[in-house]
Amino acid sequence: MQFHHHGYVSGDPRVQPAAGVGIDRPAQLPDEVDVLVVGTGPAGMLTAAQLSQFPGITTRIVERRSGRLAIGQADGIQARSVETFQAFGFAERIIAEAYRITEMAFWKPDPADPSRIVRAARAVDDATGVSEFPHLIVNQARVLDYFGEFMANSPTRMSPDYGLEFSSLEVADEGEYPVTVTLLQTAGPDEGQERVVHAKYVVGADGARSKVRESIGCTLAGDKANHAWGVMDVLAVTDFPDIRTKCAIQSGAGGSILLIPREGGHLFRMYVDLGEVPQDDAGAVRSTTVGQIIAKANNILHPYTLEVRDVAWHSVYEVGHRLTDRFDDVLPDQRGIRTPRIFITGDACHTHSAKAGQGMNVSMQDGFNLAWKLGHVLEGRSPESLLSTYSAERQVIAKNLIDFDKEWSTLMAKKPEEFASPSELEDFYVSTAEFPAGFMTQYAPSMLIAAPVHQELAAGFTIGKRFKSAPVVRVCDANPVQLGHQAAADGRWRIYVFADGAAPQQLAAAPSPAADLAEWIASSPESPLAAAPERADRDAWFDIKVIYQQDHTSIDIGAVPAAFKPQVGPFRLTCLEKVYATDAAADIFELRGLDRGGVVVVVRPDQYVANVLPLTATAELGAFFAPLLRAGSRAPEFQDHAG
Amino acid sequence: MQFHHHGYVSGDPRVQPAAGVGIDRPAQLPDEVDVLVVGTGPAGMLTAAQLSQFPGITTRIVERRSGRLAIGQADGIQARSVETFQAFGFAERIIAEAYRITEMAFWKPDPADPSRIVRAARAVDDATGVSEFPHLIVNQARVLDYFGEFMANSPTRMSPDYGLEFSSLEVADEGEYPVTVTLLQTAGPDEGQERVVHAKYVVGADGARSKVRESIGCTLAGDKANHAWGVMDVLAVTDFPDIRTKCAIQSGAGGSILLIPREGGHLFRMYVDLGEVPQDDAGAVRSTTVGQIIAKANNILHPYTLEVRDVAWHSVYEVGHRLTDRFDDVLPDQRGIRTPRIFITGDACHTHSAKAGQGMNVSMQDGFNLAWKLGHVLEGRSPESLLSTYSAERQVIAKNLIDFDKEWSTLMAKKPEEFASPSELEDFYVSTAEFPAGFMTQYAPSMLIAAPVHQELAAGFTIGKRFKSAPVVRVCDANPVQLGHQAAADGRWRIYVFADGAAPQQLAAAPSPAADLAEWIASSPESPLAAAPERADRDAWFDIKVIYQQDHTSIDIGAVPAAFKPQVGPFRLTCLEKVYATDAAADIFELRGLDRGGVVVVVRPDQYVANVLPLTATAELGAFFAPLLRAGSRAPEFQDHAG
Repeated sequence: MQFHHHGYVSGDPRVQPAAGVGIDRPAQLPDEVDVLVVGTGPAGMLTAAQLSQFPGITTRIVERRSGRLAIGQADGIQARSVETFQAFGFAERIIAEAYRITEMAFWKPDPADPSRIVRAARAVDDATGVSEFPHLIVNQARVLDYFGEFMANSPTRMSPDYGLEFSSLEVADEGEYPVTVTLLQTAGPDEGQERVVHAKYVVGADGARSKVRESIGCTLAGDKANHAWGVMDVLAVTDFPDIRTKCAIQSGAGGSILLIPREGGHLFRMYVDLGEVPQDDAGAVRSTTVGQIIAKANNILHPYTLEVRDVAWHSVYEVGHRLTDRFDDVLPDQRGIRTPRIFITGDACHTHSAKAGQGMNVSMQDGFNLAWKLGHVLEGRSPESLLSTYSAERQVIAKNLIDFDKEWSTLMAKKPEEFASPSELEDFYVSTAEFPAGFMTQYAPSMLIAAPVHQELAAGFTIGKRFKSAPVVRVCDANPVQLGHQAAADGRWRIYVFADGAAPQQLAAAPSPAADLAEWIASSPESPLAAAPERADRDAWFDIKVIYQQDHTSIDIGAVPAAFKPQVGPFRLTCLEKVYATDAAADIFELRGLDRGGVVVVVRPDQYVANVLPLTATAELGAFFAPLLRAGSRAPEFQDHAG
Repeated sequence: MQFHHHGYVSGDPRVQPAAGVGIDRPAQLPDEVDVLVVGTGPAGMLTAAQLSQFPGITTRIVERRSGRLAIGQADGIQARSVETFQAFGFAERIIAEAYRITEMAFWKPDPADPSRIVRAARAVDDATGVSEFPHLIVNQARVLDYFGEFMANSPTRMSPDYGLEFSSLEVADEGEYPVTVTLLQTAGPDEGQERVVHAKYVVGADGARSKVRESIGCTLAGDKANHAWGVMDVLAVTDFPDIRTKCAIQSGAGGSILLIPREGGHLFRMYVDLGEVPQDDAGAVRSTTVGQIIAKANNILHPYTLEVRDVAWHSVYEVGHRLTDRFDDVLPDQRGIRTPRIFITGDACHTHSAKAGQGMNVSMQDGFNLAWKLGHVLEGRSPESLLSTYSAERQVIAKNLIDFDKEWSTLMAKKPEEFASPSELEDFYVSTAEFPAGFMTQYAPSMLIAAPVHQELAAGFTIGKRFKSAPVVRVCDANPVQLGHQAAADGRWRIYVFADGAAPQQLAAAPSPAADLAEWIASSPESPLAAAPERADRDAWFDIKVIYQQDHTSIDIGAVPAAFKPQVGPFRLTCLEKVYATDAAADIFELRGLDRGGVVVVVRPDQYVANVLPLTATAELGAFFAPLLRAGSRAPEFQDHAG
């Protein structure tokens, strides 16, 4: 965390100085906004939180409820989401209050007496170490709280506008604010009245019954529901020994339970199988009472018993897997002709079972993918064509999710005798671990993702996948840190320069490819830095870090090129925290398969690897960024970032 | 973190439900209080934060300033303090914003050209792994903020009463509120007016010029100041390469600097040697300007230069080492005859140089030592004689500190040619690392600290020293955790039962010493639990945890004795989080030298090991607690704790 560089900060350094539209931000929704986000679920809140880092952009987020969500339904937090929370500054805190999944247990009918269940297997969660972050369970409402805190502490001082429901929108062909949105006031003195807002862009994060989706003529397509589950969050007394462990429980009598322990040490969630739903059920299964769900759970758990003492929440749902074919308002025949104005995210685009614990996670990544693109386009850094990559990148991810979830929920609903092998369920769970952890996403080549021409220089940083952190040592203060964790969700591109073998030494300064690259970055008109506004800090758009192959005692920080030590803030202080050495106990060059001749790794603001290049490939680096940057920026007068 | 056991908690679980005096807590200072804390420095705030966990006790903390501290002088946070912050729930957050010391560099005159300094050595901070917590630098104001947040979120909903300065006090021989305190209102509409408050106990945490100390006839005694230092917190540009590393810098021209990098990546503190102060100086040295300090620093740093761009704070001080002979109002001839009513803590008791980074840390441990004792006595759990242990335990610690600091600051002020060996300074730094990290404290046997009769059963849990955490695995959810971190600052005693070799198994239940002890704890009238109020949860006063020698898959939690699985909260839910297994990768029995026949380790609410006993020593365990507990508790009607 970097602060004090504008002068002494006495209070919480997480509260950034107000700037731009955050100074005297109007309490009431203005008539004109740059981005209107509809819905305060995980996708909407992440979108708004990311945009809250752009002081020149007016973003508002409206919610039909009159206030904060009290009980959310989603609770599964995959490691990729915790990684994302780290960039938003609240990973440690949410970890501290969440339930952490380290193992999953599989219970089956006892072969000796199929009326009784027995523990058949245990599987370690993330046995392969796909992430340094844990797999958590925590109420969605808390995730939203943390994003809300982040946006309130951002320079734009954002908070949701509650009590406003989306009614309809129209997109004009021209004008600065071409989208006209009609909202209905659902609370307050003007309840029942309409409110019209003009926006440049609208993000529909308004859930499975999205009216924004409807307004752009998208529909969810997919299979019909045919299997029902009762779900309950309860406090109970039980002799079932794994009540605080995630369990898949299959009974001999038929029926199964997915048990998800919840945060706080006592609460847990059970998904209880209510069986096939007849075609002519007409929703009758949804009237199943919590008493019936509890009775069914007791049957499945036999010989163990469950005495429920308090029900926090319960519901019945039928599994449906549905998806839209596009995530924006550009019809297939208009692709390449016009760019989108309206986007949909999260449940508005994809619905599926809750049991793989994916929904909230994939929704948040929708928002993470979209928000920085809106920021860069609205600031004038990037052309509008950037916005077309959102639907292209995320629709395929949602498709993969739905395919995975169909397989998992079908397996969960199978009867024991239907399995191909006794361990089919746990084998599937273990073999697919990277998917539900959130790390299988790999974006295809596009204007944002280079073709993997030089991939072999950095085998462990797969182009199109998220940048996987590894330990390094910060030279200036000898602190061991995770390199990936030094990248905040501030909308900046990252350029990691993994140096060739020459250590920077004052007394033995010799030319090296890393030093030559630094010189090019700092001074070439072809450098991406040349596109950034001169009045801003040199690291305002690009966070450039260097990692040397030596240990920190071998690096003379005075001899490190200036491109890696930018002057920042009004006092023009030297930032020394972008210079790293190798951690002898965990060499990042070894861990990530980096070429000892050096390599440049370009990472997007949403943490995905965009390009891998040789140190000497300045022309390619310049050419990669050229279409993403354009002159005439409308960036704010003074802009800097924390790190 | 445990919650939901009183029903679903939607918001931040760190906000505990208001209870007792926290329900409708009066905004204005009442006329009668149980404890009046004077001063909101680190000692006072920790005392108040700890007492805020006792819903039956009215604690108020007054401060002569009109609000929060903006810039504090103290900044060194030893690992023992971070360990303490962990118990108060804010270690991760303060670590995230602090500067972390991992190395110290030693700069000396270049033998080839003594006009230039060169780096002579580097020393790793905590090379022996005395703690799993880091050594930090962070502004005192932030420490106070976090304690303030903790007390505001406590059941008592405490916050400081600003604008009230201590004037005087009188102690009567009798009455329920025998201490009459006169305060002066220093802010608000009644500024300048007196305010009289009646208290049961008063804690003077009012600094080096403590009026509470004066009121009980204590004086600081010690050496006169004779060496002056200029100190400045600045933002600067420099070519000195270790500007972000803690450094001791000794110049050939004379003079030295202690450089302490500060949080945020840019700010740093320098203690610049201003030399011997003549006897007839009469404070003239204190008029040294910051410009003169900067000039002196530039001389010492030659050939490097320092261009200061912003001064956040600066001061000049002369080193003094002074100490009171008692920390309460009981004169030597009254010891054993009466118990104390007035206590002094922190700088009110001990002053010394700032350069060992000790002051704030030792002060906080004063408060941690005292506060739970006040809580237990006021709740009627413990006799008033408990309060006499505070001065007895802490005065000797302060004496040790002053001796250490004298040695360190004398070394720091030495000229290079005066050293016995070239590495004398760094050798001292490395060899004494445990002291400044805060872990040398060892309380002597008393009513609270048993004689080390059975110490050999737990060689790594030294009686009288703080309980050193080690990894274990929580059985119910297979989570790897640090055992010591499961102990919140909730005022409870901890009893750790390290089991004998028998694993609890339903189908092979056999008698074992651990199971016998559990039975005794749960049912014997001699058990300490028998003293706790029946209406409270069984773990309200004693947090009893069991650690088995097996790995978690070998423990049948259903067969674990009930004493280790208490019923909690209004729903009488079973707490399963007190049962631990050994971590195969880090066996706590090996790491802490625990007897394989099992051992009981008793830990005080302030984290110090009070006793080590065989599993069979129930009589000794009962006898240890008997003098600390007494019947007729005035504990609140319903009491429980989080974990």
